[in-house]
Amino acid sequence: MSETNLSAVVVEKGKLKLEERPIPKPGKHEVQLAMHSVGICGSDMSILKNGFIGQFVLTEPMVSGHEASGTVSQVGEGVTHLIVGDRVAIEPGMPCRYCTNCKAGRYYLCSDLKFCSAPSVQGLMCRYKVHPADLCYKLPDNVSYEEGALMEPLSVAVHACKRAGITIGNKVFVSGAGTIGLVCLLVAKAMGAAQVVIADVNPKRLETAKQMGADVTVHVTSRDSQEVADQVIGALGDNPDVTMECSGAQAGVQTGIYATKSGGVMVQVGLGADMVTIPLVNAALREIDIRGTFAYPNCYPTALSMIASGQVDVKPLVTHRFSLEQTLEAFEVAKRGEGIKVMVKCDKNNA
Amino acid sequence: MSETNLSAVVVEKGKLKLEERPIPKPGKHEVQLAMHSVGICGSDMSILKNGFIGQFVLTEPMVSGHEASGTVSQVGEGVTHLIVGDRVAIEPGMPCRYCTNCKAGRYYLCSDLKFCSAPSVQGLMCRYKVHPADLCYKLPDNVSYEEGALMEPLSVAVHACKRAGITIGNKVFVSGAGTIGLVCLLVAKAMGAAQVVIADVNPKRLETAKQMGADVTVHVTSRDSQEVADQVIGALGDNPDVTMECSGAQAGVQTGIYATKSGGVMVQVGLGADMVTIPLVNAALREIDIRGTFAYPNCYPTALSMIASGQVDVKPLVTHRFSLEQTLEAFEVAKRGEGIKVMVKCDKNNA
Amino acid sequence: MSETNLSAVVVEKGKLKLEERPIPKPGKHEVQLAMHSVGICGSDMSILKNGFIGQFVLTEPMVSGHEASGTVSQVGEGVTHLIVGDRVAIEPGMPCRYCTNCKAGRYYLCSDLKFCSAPSVQGLMCRYKVHPADLCYKLPDNVSYEEGALMEPLSVAVHACKRAGITIGNKVFVSGAGTIGLVCLLVAKAMGAAQVVIADVNPKRLETAKQMGADVTVHVTSRDSQEVADQVIGALGDNPDVTMECSGAQAGVQTGIYATKSGGVMVQVGLGADMVTIPLVNAALREIDIRGTFAYPNCYPTALSMIASGQVDVKPLVTHRFSLEQTLEAFEVAKRGEGIKVMVKCDKNNA
Amino acid sequence: MSETNLSAVVVEKGKLKLEERPIPKPGKHEVQLAMHSVGICGSDMSILKNGFIGQFVLTEPMVSGHEASGTVSQVGEGVTHLIVGDRVAIEPGMPCRYCTNCKAGRYYLCSDLKFCSAPSVQGLMCRYKVHPADLCYKLPDNVSYEEGALMEPLSVAVHACKRAGITIGNKVFVSGAGTIGLVCLLVAKAMGAAQVVIADVNPKRLETAKQMGADVTVHVTSRDSQEVADQVIGALGDNPDVTMECSGAQAGVQTGIYATKSGGVMVQVGLGADMVTIPLVNAALREIDIRGTFAYPNCYPTALSMIASGQVDVKPLVTHRFSLEQTLEAFEVAKRGEGIKVMVKCDKNNA
Repeated sequence: MSETNLSAVVVEKGKLKLEERPIPKPGKHEVQLAMHSVGICGSDMSILKNGFIGQFVLTEPMVSGHEASGTVSQVGEGVTHLIVGDRVAIEPGMPCRYCTNCKAGRYYLCSDLKFCSAPSVQGLMCRYKVHPADLCYKLPDNVSYEEGALMEPLSVAVHACKRAGITIGNKVFVSGAGTIGLVCLLVAKAMGAAQVVIADVNPKRLETAKQMGADVTVHVTSRDSQEVADQVIGALGDNPDVTMECSGAQAGVQTGIYATKSGGVMVQVGLGADMVTIPLVNAALREIDIRGTFAYPNCYPTALSMIASGQVDVKPLVTHRFSLEQTLEAFEVAKRGEGIKVMVKCDKNNA
Repeated sequence: MSETNLSAVVVEKGKLKLEERPIPKPGKHEVQLAMHSVGICGSDMSILKNGFIGQFVLTEPMVSGHEASGTVSQVGEGVTHLIVGDRVAIEPGMPCRYCTNCKAGRYYLCSDLKFCSAPSVQGLMCRYKVHPADLCYKLPDNVSYEEGALMEPLSVAVHACKRAGITIGNKVFVSGAGTIGLVCLLVAKAMGAAQVVIADVNPKRLETAKQMGADVTVHVTSRDSQEVADQVIGALGDNPDVTMECSGAQAGVQTGIYATKSGGVMVQVGLGADMVTIPLVNAALREIDIRGTFAYPNCYPTALSMIASGQVDVKPLVTHRFSLEQTLEAFEVAKRGEGIKVMVKCDKNNA
Repeated sequence: MSETNLSAVVVEKGKLKLEERPIPKPGKHEVQLAMHSVGICGSDMSILKNGFIGQFVLTEPMVSGHEASGTVSQVGEGVTHLIVGDRVAIEPGMPCRYCTNCKAGRYYLCSDLKFCSAPSVQGLMCRYKVHPADLCYKLPDNVSYEEGALMEPLSVAVHACKRAGITIGNKVFVSGAGTIGLVCLLVAKAMGAAQVVIADVNPKRLETAKQMGADVTVHVTSRDSQEVADQVIGALGDNPDVTMECSGAQAGVQTGIYATKSGGVMVQVGLGADMVTIPLVNAALREIDIRGTFAYPNCYPTALSMIASGQVDVKPLVTHRFSLEQTLEAFEVAKRGEGIKVMVKCDKNNA
Repeated sequence: MSETNLSAVVVEKGKLKLEERPIPKPGKHEVQLAMHSVGICGSDMSILKNGFIGQFVLTEPMVSGHEASGTVSQVGEGVTHLIVGDRVAIEPGMPCRYCTNCKAGRYYLCSDLKFCSAPSVQGLMCRYKVHPADLCYKLPDNVSYEEGALMEPLSVAVHACKRAGITIGNKVFVSGAGTIGLVCLLVAKAMGAAQVVIADVNPKRLETAKQMGADVTVHVTSRDSQEVADQVIGALGDNPDVTMECSGAQAGVQTGIYATKSGGVMVQVGLGADMVTIPLVNAALREIDIRGTFAYPNCYPTALSMIASGQVDVKPLVTHRFSLEQTLEAFEVAKRGEGIKVMVKCDKNNA
């Protein structure tokens, strides 16, 4: 084991720093992990820039990162499903396990949830971390560490698409072709969607979406939501049964409602302004359900089996790699918005 | 049979007139009905005032009314479940029976739906009407004609509360204490809601709600939606599992979202402005489903059994009665908004 | 606090004994309870008689009882929702909180479940017991200890009826009028069932069912399942939408399938012989769902709110009461099958 | 148009005959079809052999066949979505459109259902047939007539797998590798099943299943259902979330229950003996849902989009082809059970 625990710490708003921290020991039902691959997420950049996200405000220096995989380096008391050396993907949200929501299976609605790298719960971009063992999922040999880290955004899409109830024969509209839009595309296809149309203002993203399996794409140029909805319907040859709204933009939300088939579903995955103006009467009279989605309760096993069985290929999402020592540079590249996913390699061999 | 077919006709925008019309004959799968009790709905008044409702524009003189009951006076070919003399409640929406939505059981999403008194489909405020027999529900002896007519608003609540998935133990918030709010209260209670709180700006309506079974009421005076939400939560002692938004007002919608429990449901029953500004991020992250509702597919049998078995008592809703000959006066009274439901008695004995 | 912990112990197959045991101390997330009222369940008698139940075999002396309420007498670390003196109902199943089923909200399918008085997990018929605090539900002032204990069988019915999806307007057939049949009747009514028919071979039980709200009863005398099904359908005037099979008898199961409406649901609540012969083609072609049910995940809060709000009255179920010192006599009376529920009063004041 | 309407008629039990029948004219909402490809189904053979199927008894000579496609040759009044020359797949069940089940979207539970080739409703193995237009689904250019005919068994699997609720990540056990087992395999995969294991007594069928995408196969040799269940679990490395029981054999049903994961679902697709002995307590305590399935309400559009989009390839199912004139020979070959699907080519060009 490395003697030190180098960690990428958001010290305060706007200030990211590498520092040595103590190596933690696993308690009951916990494992110690030698971290391997950790993706940089938009929320990580947002916290660094603003010092908060949503209601969560940075109150002390915090290790960044929550899209992660690693290797079990120590096993705590009562852990039976993992041994030292196991390669694992890490689910970053830690529920209380005692409240009504936890016991009802909606553990990301737990009001006492601890979420790695949501201020100020320590994140995973470091050499060593202790984590609840049941939230570490053993990777089979044919799944890489990077795929393990990508199970986090993939799980976002798994939960969102399950909330949507996508099934065989569905026509699906994905609004927004960023990372989350792309994984929603992959998951919708895996769930049996007959046709997926994806829309974005950025033609390069649409190119990627095409390569990843989108049946049709709509390059959004108009500011008229009804007009864009008509383009989507035209591209599909019908109204979508399901809209996955991944842009968070007011125009995207409005387009989603106008486009969705009567009796259909729009899942709001993207997050934008707090207050959004929507055509509510249109949605209500046509019985369109607008469903929220947060994180990925019970989704990691599904995401893992999808990757392991080859149903989805997330590897093309990784476009940049940096060592833990290069984390500041990694964040700079991520900020410039080139490529899709930037990976920080936390294991010593990548130093 | 009466020799004439006196009918309350919206001749054009703003002009309601009584006129004699031919007595229609039933075709295959149809019955002729001697109309009895027909309630005046807000939409009937709205069409009279504006000459349209939603996308439906008055293009020819149209008989008003769609909350109705009557007596079978002739039976068409192929009708086996009704005989002359049967007292029936009348479901006013006539689906095409051939499209995808009809065959999937969501027949009010039929794009070819004919709805009595939605311009310009002839309504039910007249002496004689022909209607599809399967949309006429035989009333048992212990259910009155007026209760039969009230099955229409009751069915609105049945469908809306089913869309909400209300069940035993639920805490329910009804936003708005008009007719639809009141029937939602009744239905929520019948579905096992443990506690129902109802909110309105009008204290008299809250008084009625109390009498009809509301556990607690909130008199809305603040214009701050978050503050009203806090009052609702305070009154319940907890966030509601379900919100039935029956006001259609933007403030009501916002209050509903702020108040609803994480993982809960808000059904949008009331209809107000086309575009409404809502706290979408709040709803999305807390996984609140916002569901629309339209009419009452497959709900008349349920509404009937609820009245027949005594689970709900809708009789207190009728506050005024007029003969068909007095229809213009009836609309005047309805317009003044006194009382709750105004009934037009269409059978000759009430002349 | 009493100095001793008198406990009703199943020492071995066939041998129930009162003995003094140490008073336990609460650990983290636990409370110590001064036990008050504990009902005797058929399974308690079965374990005493046979030394096992299902796959669970008595391997060491075990305190009996799992239908229980008590008073918080000590509070462990990390417990915030309870204080000493709180009166509580006790949910007897203790899940592992870490496995897939626990995290998915189906915690009674936990393969590591510990269930009070299921061999050989210590039960609740004693003076003092330690229990997870989150499984203790504070009783409001208007709910008695006995009602608290009865929340256990009531919760069985809550879960079973939720599995059935009973809702307003449903016609429900309850097969078997024992304790569980009776609470299913109460819950079905509370969920909005328009009509409940209950069938049994024992006319006295049907009498009780009538008093507790059954709309119709069927006295089963025929051994021909199809004939009994016809009687049920005749009594309801229609096929039931839902059958709650609470007898466990093969004839009851067959009758349930024959009677249930096409597209309906039968929940198998009663447990009889391991292997049962059923009309599977009849069920399959008519798309009847046969659903199992076990215990009551997430049901105690619902059961509590139903009692507290007066939706159900379970008090008539208690027909006999004994002190903890009289436990052997209590079991004898329970075995004779007179009355419905026998309560053992475990608090010292009842000695 | 051909001057004659050659038809394959089951004249009585055991007697199939080719005869000329009048050419029918389409009525309102109907089309006349020049039949093209019609598959022979097990039920067609069963009716020929026994003179009945289930409760349906042959009371007059009846044209056989219900797995069919054809070309629109005349269009009746009110038909707008089809024109002469359109190639269509034909959904064989004709609901009444007026009863409760029809209006609720479960139109195959219609008690007045007419089903082509279910005694004694005339079937589709002929030159010309009139059929409701909305039950004829236009085939895009890339879907062949034979694929159109195969939409019938495919739709059986679509409905059955939807009843099962199969979704991404599921492990699925298909019991029985006949035609229906094979299409269930295809549909389960298309719905995102991560792993499908299929079991049969016939190793040749398992070979085919392997080629069509089964991940693992189990050759059933033991008569001990629990032992076979253990083999299935071993092959999957876990209990299946879903079992599609397509054998109808009692041993298959028992194996399905023993194998299915606690909280999982078994859909009974295969039909065998009327009365079947099952481990009911095992199923009930582990909350396994046993769901029936009949036909394919609202499934043809899904089946079509799956074939058109290339999600499933049903073409390998056709192993034999005969002209309409050779129908008797075709039935002989089907009876011998070689190959999978025997097609009768009803268009004149195939004579």
